[in-house]
Amino acid sequence: MSGKAIQERYPKGYCHCYGCGTLNEHGLHILSYWDGKESVCEFHPREYHIAMPGYVYGGLIASLIDCHSIGTAAAAAHQDRDETSEELPRFVTASLNITYLKPTPAGEKITIRAHASEVKGRKVLVAAELSAAGQVCAKGDVVAVEMPDSW
Amino acid sequence: MSGKAIQERYPKGYCHCYGCGTLNEHGLHILSYWDGKESVCEFHPREYHIAMPGYVYGGLIASLIDCHSIGTAAAAAHQDRDETSEELPRFVTASLNITYLKPTPAGEKITIRAHASEVKGRKVLVAAELSAAGQVCAKGDVVAVEMPDSW
Repeated sequence: MSGKAIQERYPKGYCHCYGCGTLNEHGLHILSYWDGKESVCEFHPREYHIAMPGYVYGGLIASLIDCHSIGTAAAAAHQDRDETSEELPRFVTASLNITYLKPTPAGEKITIRAHASEVKGRKVLVAAELSAAGQVCAKGDVVAVEMPDSW
Repeated sequence: MSGKAIQERYPKGYCHCYGCGTLNEHGLHILSYWDGKESVCEFHPREYHIAMPGYVYGGLIASLIDCHSIGTAAAAAHQDRDETSEELPRFVTASLNITYLKPTPAGEKITIRAHASEVKGRKVLVAAELSAAGQVCAKGDVVAVEMPDSW
């Protein structure tokens, strides 16, 4: 994956997220890449990110889908608005629904793909799919809302 | 909160969870206490567990609700079965639905309360509520399923 990641295009004051903030030195540093239709994220869990030996922790899966979907919402809304600036709008999560289809094997690269199923003003609906070792292990549906100016 | 936590009553082979495993040295060590009707968890996020300065990371909130709800399912199922052993059954997450009602303030103790709304064989439905500084900030609905023997 090449080019700038979505999270590298957030306004500098909003890059502290534990999941995806480029400025959070303890964080997971989730990076998402947008191709104009869908976004892709690849992630290698650390060896202690387990639910039990051999399987990835479900809370990490929720975190990956959350940050990646919020990034997807930002990229889709920016494109929908025909904006030319490199900087992306910052969205937050209104709801996060994860379905765990099968245990995610540890020791494998995780790939998440997501797209916006609806862009409506400040609200974007995102559908995400997480896979590892060639199998879809979890699905996510996220309602993303643009951050209120008051924040 | 006194007595043994739910997570201290899991079988020893199933205590490696990054969220709540007593044997995961890098983990969050979420602990839940069951009073026969509901369960309570208190958690102090680390200073880097933020979505942005001042607000707690949503992925952490999902993780807390996930592990606490799975623990609640285990305690409720154990009680429903009238089992006398101290050891609890181990559940896993089939689905995790989080609604973020308002931003969770950083620097505050987080409290999560949960109860089983339905116990049906190997499946338990759990409703959870997360609050900080006296306000409910997120709600969770979790479908928990008892871990297959094949694991």
